[in-house]
Amino acid sequence: MTTDLLVKTAELIDVASVSYQEAVIAELIEARLKAVPGLTVDRVGDNVVARTDLGRPRRVLIGGHSDTVPPNNNEVARIDGDVVWGLGAADMKAALAVMLELAASVAEPTVDVTWLFYAREEVRIADSGLREIFDARPDLLAADVALLGEPTGGAVEAGCQGSMRAVVTLTGARAHTARPWMGVNAIHRLGSLLRLVEAYEPRTPVIDGCQYRESLQAVAVTGGVAGNVVPDRAEVTLGYRYAPDRNGAAAESALRELLLPVLGNDDHFEVTEHAPAASPGLGHPLLQQLIKDNNLEIKSKLGWTDVAFFAERGIPAANCGPGDSTLAHTAEERVDRASVEAYRRCLETLLTAD
Amino acid sequence: MTTDLLVKTAELIDVASVSYQEAVIAELIEARLKAVPGLTVDRVGDNVVARTDLGRPRRVLIGGHSDTVPPNNNEVARIDGDVVWGLGAADMKAALAVMLELAASVAEPTVDVTWLFYAREEVRIADSGLREIFDARPDLLAADVALLGEPTGGAVEAGCQGSMRAVVTLTGARAHTARPWMGVNAIHRLGSLLRLVEAYEPRTPVIDGCQYRESLQAVAVTGGVAGNVVPDRAEVTLGYRYAPDRNGAAAESALRELLLPVLGNDDHFEVTEHAPAASPGLGHPLLQQLIKDNNLEIKSKLGWTDVAFFAERGIPAANCGPGDSTLAHTAEERVDRASVEAYRRCLETLLTAD
Repeated sequence: MTTDLLVKTAELIDVASVSYQEAVIAELIEARLKAVPGLTVDRVGDNVVARTDLGRPRRVLIGGHSDTVPPNNNEVARIDGDVVWGLGAADMKAALAVMLELAASVAEPTVDVTWLFYAREEVRIADSGLREIFDARPDLLAADVALLGEPTGGAVEAGCQGSMRAVVTLTGARAHTARPWMGVNAIHRLGSLLRLVEAYEPRTPVIDGCQYRESLQAVAVTGGVAGNVVPDRAEVTLGYRYAPDRNGAAAESALRELLLPVLGNDDHFEVTEHAPAASPGLGHPLLQQLIKDNNLEIKSKLGWTDVAFFAERGIPAANCGPGDSTLAHTAEERVDRASVEAYRRCLETLLTAD
Repeated sequence: MTTDLLVKTAELIDVASVSYQEAVIAELIEARLKAVPGLTVDRVGDNVVARTDLGRPRRVLIGGHSDTVPPNNNEVARIDGDVVWGLGAADMKAALAVMLELAASVAEPTVDVTWLFYAREEVRIADSGLREIFDARPDLLAADVALLGEPTGGAVEAGCQGSMRAVVTLTGARAHTARPWMGVNAIHRLGSLLRLVEAYEPRTPVIDGCQYRESLQAVAVTGGVAGNVVPDRAEVTLGYRYAPDRNGAAAESALRELLLPVLGNDDHFEVTEHAPAASPGLGHPLLQQLIKDNNLEIKSKLGWTDVAFFAERGIPAANCGPGDSTLAHTAEERVDRASVEAYRRCLETLLTAD
């Protein structure tokens, strides 16, 4: 009798695992994997890693995060026909259910497998369980390719754009607003800068057949001293997402060059956050075969994902998982049977490739 | 023997009277005025009003505020040659010293006189002692002309510009910054608005020989939702100072019309504060004579002062007082003997005019 993966997904949904509260689900995952013969199971904090050691020439890492965002009146799973609803259904407990199922059922994979269940993906990068493992046991993350189960509707999402945040501080000179010609209004100077940002034409490079689309957005603005004072300071935070044909230094240069016409000597430009881009990396034979065997659609990823974590460390990686990413983090989050079964077949071809 | 007005000023400086802490100085002023025969003295809160009642055809109100801004390591008066230094020296304890001196010494003025010492001028208008008196005893403020002793370096500062503050809220539509074309960035929309404000050409009308100069300044800006979100809201506060040939309604219309090209249907414009303008009002014979007798320079007032309070109530008013207004509210605040003596002579001509 085949396992009902919707029921397995529902069981995992019912184990609450909001970020930072993942000890219970980690216990459960660890216990299940320890019951599987032939797997070496390691626990690092709330992360669980299980590996085969069959001496195969290649190792595939299949990963998923165990946390969810906070509930939205959807913390209890509900199965309705061929759909399971609930917090984390798509992002990403259906993928975890498939991973646990295959870890137990595929006894003789043709590649060595690393099953990675990691904590705190939905929060700031510095807190990610991936970094915790890398700091404590980098050997656990060694692999030839990595496949992460983020919801992609079954497509392969390749690479990801880099994400850079920069704070630009424009300066001026204070004066009483009744005599504004005695000063320089820093908020007025924002006008030209924002017009420049608004007029920015995004690059749309095609890399390995994936089309990217950069973006530049002002995401915060602040300025002002008092109601009667010509302000001498205004600050704007820019979010720049750049395609993986650029590295961080090139992206920063491009941004500085763009702003050059509106910045003066006393203004400041500072990159405050940066998550690098990742190339699509679909050239690896294992990924090529996966795409061919399952006739998978390839999409570029415009946002940032943990794929970049592996790419930075020289491991080709991609996202591929069941469910619709636009429903993730909403009260309507759900996943359907066809999507979950397709993901199971997809992983099976990877684990049983010639 | 003539009173040394610098000593009298220093005495008043040494009676601390930061806004809202004016009970002690009000006591002192009240006691001094009550000692003068022929004056009717009224106390309203921390305000003191002393009036002659000689049946003269005209009444002059001579006013000054008793509060100071907080100290700046200058709360103790220091006389150095012909200069007295200290908190409130110019703004406006030298004027108060002259007023107290003349209230006691000019026994038979040719006009009836209202000596007004009022509280809380340096803080928000709603807290002003002037309003407190007007609410409780409007009859105390009746006069044909009013002269306020704000520091003008001895010139007559006529009228004042109106001051209007308006908050403009620009709207947009949220989206993930990786897919900004799904939204509308409200901060980007600020660009055009700020460029428009920056390009504003101030009107400079001449009224009664006084040249005004309007101004429009962005004094605060705020916007942003989160680092990854295209913001759907940005807010800018504009400060508009307008010449006294406009009333509040006309000023608001002019401002709305200026912004029309950059505002959409879902944006908001709201006037949040308004202090009306005051015409120069120098046509009154008493003021004409004062200017002629003392050969006073006439300046227009670009900021807002309590002169407008009287103008609104139909009483021609002007500022004229000792000291340099640009030193007021600084650690270098001071006033010199020539300036204080000139103010005394000036008031004497007003009180003894034919």
